[in-house]
Amino acid sequence: MTPTASLHDIAHLGSVELLTPAFDRSLWYFHDLLGMEVVQRTATAAYLRGYGDHAATTLKLTAAPGPGVGCVAWRATSPEALERRAVALQEAGLGIGWTNGDFGRGRSFRFHDPDGHVMEVYWEEQRYVAPPAQRSTLKNLPQKYSGRGVGVRRADHLALLAADVPANRGFAQNLLGFQLREQVLYQNGTREIGSWMSPNAIHHQLAYVADLKGGHGRLHHFSLWVDNRDDVLRAADILSENGVFIEAGPAKHNNSQGFYLYSYEPGGNRVEIYSGSFLVMAPDWQPVTWNEHERGTGVYWGGALPESFIRYATPDIEGEADAPRLPVFF
Amino acid sequence: MTPTASLHDIAHLGSVELLTPAFDRSLWYFHDLLGMEVVQRTATAAYLRGYGDHAATTLKLTAAPGPGVGCVAWRATSPEALERRAVALQEAGLGIGWTNGDFGRGRSFRFHDPDGHVMEVYWEEQRYVAPPAQRSTLKNLPQKYSGRGVGVRRADHLALLAADVPANRGFAQNLLGFQLREQVLYQNGTREIGSWMSPNAIHHQLAYVADLKGGHGRLHHFSLWVDNRDDVLRAADILSENGVFIEAGPAKHNNSQGFYLYSYEPGGNRVEIYSGSFLVMAPDWQPVTWNEHERGTGVYWGGALPESFIRYATPDIEGEADAPRLPVFF
Amino acid sequence: MTPTASLHDIAHLGSVELLTPAFDRSLWYFHDLLGMEVVQRTATAAYLRGYGDHAATTLKLTAAPGPGVGCVAWRATSPEALERRAVALQEAGLGIGWTNGDFGRGRSFRFHDPDGHVMEVYWEEQRYVAPPAQRSTLKNLPQKYSGRGVGVRRADHLALLAADVPANRGFAQNLLGFQLREQVLYQNGTREIGSWMSPNAIHHQLAYVADLKGGHGRLHHFSLWVDNRDDVLRAADILSENGVFIEAGPAKHNNSQGFYLYSYEPGGNRVEIYSGSFLVMAPDWQPVTWNEHERGTGVYWGGALPESFIRYATPDIEGEADAPRLPVFF
Amino acid sequence: MTPTASLHDIAHLGSVELLTPAFDRSLWYFHDLLGMEVVQRTATAAYLRGYGDHAATTLKLTAAPGPGVGCVAWRATSPEALERRAVALQEAGLGIGWTNGDFGRGRSFRFHDPDGHVMEVYWEEQRYVAPPAQRSTLKNLPQKYSGRGVGVRRADHLALLAADVPANRGFAQNLLGFQLREQVLYQNGTREIGSWMSPNAIHHQLAYVADLKGGHGRLHHFSLWVDNRDDVLRAADILSENGVFIEAGPAKHNNSQGFYLYSYEPGGNRVEIYSGSFLVMAPDWQPVTWNEHERGTGVYWGGALPESFIRYATPDIEGEADAPRLPVFF
Repeated sequence: MTPTASLHDIAHLGSVELLTPAFDRSLWYFHDLLGMEVVQRTATAAYLRGYGDHAATTLKLTAAPGPGVGCVAWRATSPEALERRAVALQEAGLGIGWTNGDFGRGRSFRFHDPDGHVMEVYWEEQRYVAPPAQRSTLKNLPQKYSGRGVGVRRADHLALLAADVPANRGFAQNLLGFQLREQVLYQNGTREIGSWMSPNAIHHQLAYVADLKGGHGRLHHFSLWVDNRDDVLRAADILSENGVFIEAGPAKHNNSQGFYLYSYEPGGNRVEIYSGSFLVMAPDWQPVTWNEHERGTGVYWGGALPESFIRYATPDIEGEADAPRLPVFF
Repeated sequence: MTPTASLHDIAHLGSVELLTPAFDRSLWYFHDLLGMEVVQRTATAAYLRGYGDHAATTLKLTAAPGPGVGCVAWRATSPEALERRAVALQEAGLGIGWTNGDFGRGRSFRFHDPDGHVMEVYWEEQRYVAPPAQRSTLKNLPQKYSGRGVGVRRADHLALLAADVPANRGFAQNLLGFQLREQVLYQNGTREIGSWMSPNAIHHQLAYVADLKGGHGRLHHFSLWVDNRDDVLRAADILSENGVFIEAGPAKHNNSQGFYLYSYEPGGNRVEIYSGSFLVMAPDWQPVTWNEHERGTGVYWGGALPESFIRYATPDIEGEADAPRLPVFF
Repeated sequence: MTPTASLHDIAHLGSVELLTPAFDRSLWYFHDLLGMEVVQRTATAAYLRGYGDHAATTLKLTAAPGPGVGCVAWRATSPEALERRAVALQEAGLGIGWTNGDFGRGRSFRFHDPDGHVMEVYWEEQRYVAPPAQRSTLKNLPQKYSGRGVGVRRADHLALLAADVPANRGFAQNLLGFQLREQVLYQNGTREIGSWMSPNAIHHQLAYVADLKGGHGRLHHFSLWVDNRDDVLRAADILSENGVFIEAGPAKHNNSQGFYLYSYEPGGNRVEIYSGSFLVMAPDWQPVTWNEHERGTGVYWGGALPESFIRYATPDIEGEADAPRLPVFF
Repeated sequence: MTPTASLHDIAHLGSVELLTPAFDRSLWYFHDLLGMEVVQRTATAAYLRGYGDHAATTLKLTAAPGPGVGCVAWRATSPEALERRAVALQEAGLGIGWTNGDFGRGRSFRFHDPDGHVMEVYWEEQRYVAPPAQRSTLKNLPQKYSGRGVGVRRADHLALLAADVPANRGFAQNLLGFQLREQVLYQNGTREIGSWMSPNAIHHQLAYVADLKGGHGRLHHFSLWVDNRDDVLRAADILSENGVFIEAGPAKHNNSQGFYLYSYEPGGNRVEIYSGSFLVMAPDWQPVTWNEHERGTGVYWGGALPESFIRYATPDIEGEADAPRLPVFF
């Protein structure tokens, strides 16, 4: 675990691609219920953003036979940083190659993490410019707050499963320069259940959590930010009234202190509506570690997360989870 | 000021009719921005309700040459109570007569208050039954929470101007049985600037405030309830983004401790979005009085309400307000 | 189930006495953590109130060998109403007799409900008058908001267990004049699991829930009001930080739509911190009923309440709960 | 205005020293009302922190003849960054010299900005370690949330007055590497009224605003963060109940979208309680500019800030403000 505080080449999470076997219903979920905007459509994909996302798009929905995560895009801090990362990732044997960039982004270097999730890094980004009727009275807001549904403001983070958490955590630290924020370590610190990391002040923009079924390339959840805890509570009403399955929350995590609500979008992917948490600005932040005895139920206020929270991910796969009596931990 | 604690004939505010010279825009304001539902339409009127209103309708919008308040309907506590009130109001010389009732209500006795506002009292009320697709997962909620716009829950109260506040306050106490909750009394208690009253535990469902221009039958504001202060803050964003004039708030009144936001709907009527406040359950509640020296600025946290708050009402009329240096007081 | 809408003799819940085997710690819980004020002390009892309670006291803590509920006091709507209730309760064979009244209340008629809980009704009530240093800048608030701990505003309601729910529900309707608001009815409506009732616009001030262990005179919970859902969330932090056991919440009930947080005060009694819910003003309110198939998990947003919620009450007693597979229902 | 996106030597605001002529009362304000903790005391100074501040101290109160700002400390991103900044500041003629560091910090390089405010940069920082009784159940929180008063979480930012805004803004950009986030530019962009900047994702940690009286080294306000808008509203109650002057808010700024409450601590300094706002993670963020015609009243929801907001700063000085009809702008 080599500290890489001086590496400052990744600025922030850019965009997440979700695969969905229920494209129209997934679009209804993100547009009508969560209040995101559709900025581009093709035959098999839709590009969306939250009202406060400054980039042209932060979520791509792609029609697919089953749910899961497609490409995760990270923005570099400069053109030079992009080149540096491309070289380093190529040298590490993780490179896939350059593309001209998906909608809203320029030339991108595509790669995969050790677990097989596809990612890319880019510099050029199209900023969203609202049509006149959609301009906000606030010049620092890229578009009007619409008041439609939940009204998620922006993409926040994602959590991926990995068969080998230490390997993927090390990749994110050393090759992407992410700072390690929190960890769940079991069995006297010898088993790394999960690690939460970030390239900026947001508590975590990427988490790797143990894939207890030994799968690869799977998604635990994608998380969207709302400004207030009351928005999370309101979201629970909206999802309930529209028959969306709520898996957990609203409640407060130990880890990150985030105020969360987990539901499954109609395509099957777990989506979090998220607020609260805290910022980390210390260059020498000491990772906070939790073991199986410390508030192992995972939920700050005392309850436990449901079993599905540790056993279900997308794509869903057969197999017995290697976790006979693991408490549910996030 | 005769106490009438034993009179328990009026249950609650039933419906308020607002007159608007901008019918379509007013409908946009209440339906699209405030999130109310339209339950009935005629050529010149629309009947609306909040998602939590159990009655078929609580707001009637009527196309008219200018803004103002039409008929204010109160529900009786029983059929006998309706008859008792009809007799008493008739005997007091305020009766107009019986009608078959407007949409959603049975036989109604129409009357006017001393200032000339038209009111009616009724017993039979049609309860709202949502069509299947609009039923809430909560059996105790008359319809789904839609998540559209502000999402006002229900009608709460209204404030009327009156040239003679004591006369109208006495009418509400003695003929309607309302309990006096708070008063603003100037000049050593000799000038009654405003009185806040209610037939139930809600802090006030009717206020009479001095018409400083000497008009008659005018409306100060109609108030709609939201469950959380955060909803009021969110409403301020939605109204701002849609170019609606915000006159005051979000802030907290001294009087009633209500958390308020005042805007003018496109027809010109002042509408309040309201939360907080407190319930009064004491049968022998002692009215709280405020004079011009006690936090006379009116706003709890220290600011002052704008001049328009005391000078503008609907219909707007010519004339110098008889209040050269009255602080703005609610 | 005879409707008694015309009976209007009880105004509101006055005070609840909690018995505690851990007097000092219970006092710490209510004063330091919940932010209530102590207005009177004796060797074995403390009288408390929330900052918004207008009465001299609304909670009495009494040192006792074990936890449970002592006397529940109800305020009459008038001196005549008090006399009427005393006669009716005496005639019903439930009378215990007149007392001079506990601290802050005048002459009181003591009785018991069919299940054996001790209650009393009174008219004369001492209003709280704050010492000068504790006066609020808001004349309609009986004392300053202190900002200490949770800051509960006022007593809201209580839930009692009863071996025979229909008998006790009927008593509250017919002898106290409470309106039935909601019910949980199992087995095609033949088994009354719980009934929620109120003498005023508050959704419920008294609930009777089946005592599945066949006990008598037991308490399910006592509930204290806060103005905002955020206060409930904040309370969860405060209780967690102070090692108080949180049994359930913060979350939203189906029944009453209340936003709740249940913890056990150090004496063992279940205490709810409560907000939201909705007011009922209809004189002809139709009780909402729920069966075992309708959102039987009880919690609006999808989760289930813990088993203890149905099995634990104070005083705790031996015995197998007669509810092999009852979902937890409130 | 040379962009300096690659300069990444300052991590975050470390600590602000406030001078107060009412030391004990200022301490009461920050400790009792705002809920900060005192970690160190000397005869003439107190070192405080919010419950969520990871550093040993973030606010120093120093007894002084009059109010104002003392030393503003910034943390470097590394030991090397500290050396680089020391050299650059020295070369720019702004250096004062090295010190051994104030309480909780190691060797510090002291300097002044062009307007004369004293600042320092440091690397070594003592992390706060709570005594056992004050440890939080959350391992990622440096101490228990106490529930005392407002409960401010951490230091957020400060705003300084400067006679020459462009010079000081350029200093912060070029010598500290801060990114320019928003500006108020009057007279066709020729008069820079204010500039908001940050070294990290927080919208702004330093603002320079025109000193309309031509003073030097003055403070506009120091700002403390709370997690929720509801905490700001609750703070307004607490300050009102304790007789603290509230100058403006709670309301929402255009600039930064921050939800604010301004009061004067007993020593005379303006203190903001702050939440909301938004994060900036774009390396190429384009500064948002506002002119005198764009929502010039300054407050998002429509009202205007009071005149004092632009005319009062600490230390207060004589002189006519050079702003006959400037709208109040933040």
